[in-house]
Amino acid sequence: MLRIAVLGCGRIGRMHAANIAAHPRAALAGVYDIHAPAAEEVAASLGARRFDSAEDVFGAAEVDAVLIASSTATHADFIEASVAAGKPVLCEKPIDLSLERVQLCARNTSGTDVPIMVGFCRRFDPGHRAARAAIQAGEIGDLHQVIITSRDPGMAPDAYIEASGGIFRDMTIHDFDLARYMLGEEVETVTATGSRLVDPALMARCDDYDTVVVTLTTKAGRQAVITNSRRAVYGYDQRVELFGSGGMLISENHRETLVTKHIAGATGISAPLKDFFIERYQDAFAAEIDNFIDAAEGSAPLDATFEDGRRALILAEAAIRSVAEGRTVATSEIG
Amino acid sequence: MLRIAVLGCGRIGRMHAANIAAHPRAALAGVYDIHAPAAEEVAASLGARRFDSAEDVFGAAEVDAVLIASSTATHADFIEASVAAGKPVLCEKPIDLSLERVQLCARNTSGTDVPIMVGFCRRFDPGHRAARAAIQAGEIGDLHQVIITSRDPGMAPDAYIEASGGIFRDMTIHDFDLARYMLGEEVETVTATGSRLVDPALMARCDDYDTVVVTLTTKAGRQAVITNSRRAVYGYDQRVELFGSGGMLISENHRETLVTKHIAGATGISAPLKDFFIERYQDAFAAEIDNFIDAAEGSAPLDATFEDGRRALILAEAAIRSVAEGRTVATSEIG
Amino acid sequence: MLRIAVLGCGRIGRMHAANIAAHPRAALAGVYDIHAPAAEEVAASLGARRFDSAEDVFGAAEVDAVLIASSTATHADFIEASVAAGKPVLCEKPIDLSLERVQLCARNTSGTDVPIMVGFCRRFDPGHRAARAAIQAGEIGDLHQVIITSRDPGMAPDAYIEASGGIFRDMTIHDFDLARYMLGEEVETVTATGSRLVDPALMARCDDYDTVVVTLTTKAGRQAVITNSRRAVYGYDQRVELFGSGGMLISENHRETLVTKHIAGATGISAPLKDFFIERYQDAFAAEIDNFIDAAEGSAPLDATFEDGRRALILAEAAIRSVAEGRTVATSEIG
Amino acid sequence: MLRIAVLGCGRIGRMHAANIAAHPRAALAGVYDIHAPAAEEVAASLGARRFDSAEDVFGAAEVDAVLIASSTATHADFIEASVAAGKPVLCEKPIDLSLERVQLCARNTSGTDVPIMVGFCRRFDPGHRAARAAIQAGEIGDLHQVIITSRDPGMAPDAYIEASGGIFRDMTIHDFDLARYMLGEEVETVTATGSRLVDPALMARCDDYDTVVVTLTTKAGRQAVITNSRRAVYGYDQRVELFGSGGMLISENHRETLVTKHIAGATGISAPLKDFFIERYQDAFAAEIDNFIDAAEGSAPLDATFEDGRRALILAEAAIRSVAEGRTVATSEIG
Repeated sequence: MLRIAVLGCGRIGRMHAANIAAHPRAALAGVYDIHAPAAEEVAASLGARRFDSAEDVFGAAEVDAVLIASSTATHADFIEASVAAGKPVLCEKPIDLSLERVQLCARNTSGTDVPIMVGFCRRFDPGHRAARAAIQAGEIGDLHQVIITSRDPGMAPDAYIEASGGIFRDMTIHDFDLARYMLGEEVETVTATGSRLVDPALMARCDDYDTVVVTLTTKAGRQAVITNSRRAVYGYDQRVELFGSGGMLISENHRETLVTKHIAGATGISAPLKDFFIERYQDAFAAEIDNFIDAAEGSAPLDATFEDGRRALILAEAAIRSVAEGRTVATSEIG
Repeated sequence: MLRIAVLGCGRIGRMHAANIAAHPRAALAGVYDIHAPAAEEVAASLGARRFDSAEDVFGAAEVDAVLIASSTATHADFIEASVAAGKPVLCEKPIDLSLERVQLCARNTSGTDVPIMVGFCRRFDPGHRAARAAIQAGEIGDLHQVIITSRDPGMAPDAYIEASGGIFRDMTIHDFDLARYMLGEEVETVTATGSRLVDPALMARCDDYDTVVVTLTTKAGRQAVITNSRRAVYGYDQRVELFGSGGMLISENHRETLVTKHIAGATGISAPLKDFFIERYQDAFAAEIDNFIDAAEGSAPLDATFEDGRRALILAEAAIRSVAEGRTVATSEIG
Repeated sequence: MLRIAVLGCGRIGRMHAANIAAHPRAALAGVYDIHAPAAEEVAASLGARRFDSAEDVFGAAEVDAVLIASSTATHADFIEASVAAGKPVLCEKPIDLSLERVQLCARNTSGTDVPIMVGFCRRFDPGHRAARAAIQAGEIGDLHQVIITSRDPGMAPDAYIEASGGIFRDMTIHDFDLARYMLGEEVETVTATGSRLVDPALMARCDDYDTVVVTLTTKAGRQAVITNSRRAVYGYDQRVELFGSGGMLISENHRETLVTKHIAGATGISAPLKDFFIERYQDAFAAEIDNFIDAAEGSAPLDATFEDGRRALILAEAAIRSVAEGRTVATSEIG
Repeated sequence: MLRIAVLGCGRIGRMHAANIAAHPRAALAGVYDIHAPAAEEVAASLGARRFDSAEDVFGAAEVDAVLIASSTATHADFIEASVAAGKPVLCEKPIDLSLERVQLCARNTSGTDVPIMVGFCRRFDPGHRAARAAIQAGEIGDLHQVIITSRDPGMAPDAYIEASGGIFRDMTIHDFDLARYMLGEEVETVTATGSRLVDPALMARCDDYDTVVVTLTTKAGRQAVITNSRRAVYGYDQRVELFGSGGMLISENHRETLVTKHIAGATGISAPLKDFFIERYQDAFAAEIDNFIDAAEGSAPLDATFEDGRRALILAEAAIRSVAEGRTVATSEIG
């Protein structure tokens, strides 16, 4: 029974807290939020303790491990504190918006054997995972192209966008990680294109983009293409296509139900896509916690590491530079 | 080059005439219709001769073979005349609404080696045909169940229904034949249920049904289920499912295009089904003519024979009796 | 918090016990099994009490409600005991293999306001439920035909089959109930066909069938067709098609993942179906418990009642008679 | 009746000749090939005249129009000759491998009102066309992204590749045109990535690529992404996805049949994709001829013009430069 405390009681923190509370091999050791009433509500509903500060969490003997779902600016500090306290830590992405801070955090935690996991939940999606296993089993020969379609169902609030660090660090970062997960070798070049089509005014104000295409290449010449939009009115569009010398795999979208309707003028009308990430990646979030528990108990390696978080951020930085300079950027220019 | 004349210039006759005219191995030797202007129009548009009578067709030296698409009441007479003239004949279903007349026609043509084909076009549908080939190749082991869904896109005109001989002889007859084609052994029992749901008043007046279910069994216990409706608002629904000890095959519906649409509230919205039989079974009608030419030239056996037409009518008679008496009827009671 | 005890710790009892233990609005009040070690194991793994007898369960003040997952022969007695103790009861199907015993149980519990639920889980499947809601919202007009495909992934052990009461009472009973759920009016006639194709020797020994087709009709002439097989090698095949005057709905099969594979010679290769009922109807079992808790708390009516269980058994009896006598049987002949 | 002569009797020329011969509004006026036996064979099989030279074709009074399917190097000359002879011309892509030659051809034919069509058959595919019509009808709002997947079923012979002008001019050119067709405004930037994964040795020898990704942007910021491979073992992969502010459209792949197979371990196994372009775009080639006839008769504008051919080649040139220089290239740098 791993006793896990949750820092941050926003939407994703509440979800993690509930998952931990219901997990047969974990217990919810308590919750903390800088806004005490938020923590109080979660604590009450799940019958768990509320901590008064993050320090109390790191110092508590009855806390075996920590899950960080607080605001991005706190992530690196909390990771360092948790490692210092010897407590395995699962941190939501991104580690930090600043690559420098991430590199510092890496140095500050180097040499530790305390597991540091980054919350790249898509690696744990059963479909994506089965597709990767099929690649590794050679079912489609050598991998040539990875095509990731990743579109959010709707624009986040302005305040969220403004603090997000931009689409590449905030949204594409999941796809960068997923591309790395599938490619099986490091990315060498990044070429990105950004447009302002969903909310041009907001994007201009933030010097950001809402519609992007990114192409990655590896040393072997493998290619990954990511297409993002901040708003797909038909729902949370999450597809991965893997093309190889021996065939193709597609991890398809998930719908709310598998009912189809056929009427005059249209057939095959299907349910909306699962919306949003908490529903779509419900199984993935559960499997992520499983892996974290395994790693904390020493029975399995982490499937999403601090280094994965750092590498994804490097790709985001390269994409930003590529758009700015209208050219292909080598990752070696960044890291 | 097989010179084929077409008797009957209604919708299906016109289609056959055009197919023959465009066929690389056939020529349209001429057309006839009891309503001369109809024949005149087809003859003009396809650059073919118009015959003044059916007798002229059977007597014409430049006619090698005959396709009968005239009204049902003429079919048996024309078959007999064509055989007497030594001309291979392709007759649209049904041979006749009266099983007695069909039996007589069988006797009157017995011993001939002139090919007599019945227009069971579905046997020539590439999908259905591939499915049957897969059964015969053992891809799903022993066949246990055949599930045929067959629904017309809309009710035929009252006059058509009144003269049709009833749904079992007119519409289900195609499905009876398709079931036999798939089952691979003769049907022993027929159990049918009929309802009046689409146009109850018309059905009551004609002592007919518009919505039926028929179950067939063979000596080995194989089962076939046919569901019919005279009106599916979403189009011409034509599916065949084959279930066996080693798996299942489904020959799916055909749509006008393969474009899908995904909008707020609904995904996967697909095109309407191909509507109607001339579009849906376009490839089948072409392949049917191919087989007829092959048989007329002696290079291949017929894939849909007079006997197939007679057997299908026996199943229709058994279904009519089953509904009337509320019991399972043995085909041995009919034939 | 509804404290529910579970009687019977076989596969389905264990699943229910775990669902109850994890349910935010329920607690597992304890478990009982005639084979004490089975109960002991479940009690230990879920941290719950083991009862020494069913009587202890019915007498326990800390038990608010009872879930019956013991052998079929005990169901009616336990229902009566639970009702006598004033404890809401959820009983797995069937209530009993004997319609007489069920009728007696109905009389013995008549007049009670203690909720008696029968475990027809498919009514709670999100897909089937959405399809029914669409019917009720008029999305496909008047319902004409219900087509239920229901095939088990593999033959149960001989001992199970021998004690099952036959395919109609044991397996089709779920489909009878689902047909009633969709049809929206009572069934008047039953016509069934049975074959022995999967295991002819066993079926002959048990006077049972492994491959059946059943057609039901209602007073309005609506039709339902059920096709069953005891063994579909491709998995647990569970589909419902609803055809109406304004369109069609299909509740499709569920697959393990949504990954497709495309290789030389074959495309669209998809994952196996979810196998078996505990995985396929996982969401349904959870929703069933929700409805049971609601009903026990008086906040919602039961969606699957004792009467539903009785009616389904009448259809099973009618199907048995139909096969034996080769005729359509009216439900009024049975009930 | 438009009397069309065909220049070039290779695979695509033979197909066009047969389509013309069977077309109700066209006649095959004759064929020519530099290799006389090839022309002789086609002429004989279709009952058409064989011309001794291209000059004879352009000079023949009984030739109303010309279809050019000869080798690429002859295209521009033949277009000019046909226009000079006042005969409408349909020329297979590309107009020429040299943009300079194309520009010269444009100048040499400027001012003519003789229709010059370029054989961009995909514009005439019923699915792609329906998707574009849906865009124009506003069914998915403003278009944001066009995703074109275009993979050949297998590597062409070495000699073909060596003479092809490279993948961008030879293969992607169809996708460049299709992107333009969908985008509805001119492309301003081109960013391309090329890899050698299918046949690295051949590609290195030809300074070519077999696996490419190209991103296009328009003035409004619309994006198009093209992914190409010279070899998809699962067949000729031809998909178009259109993403807009109001939804998404996908024009899906076409399969040989619509039969699915479900066996132990795999479900939904579908037929191979239609292979190759003559089968996949059969309907498109027929519709292309229709449009050509309409334009030659003056009853409709051309849907694929010389200018479309020139613009597509400019995109190919830009892609070549983009790969070479590792940067985004403006089309204004090329044209």
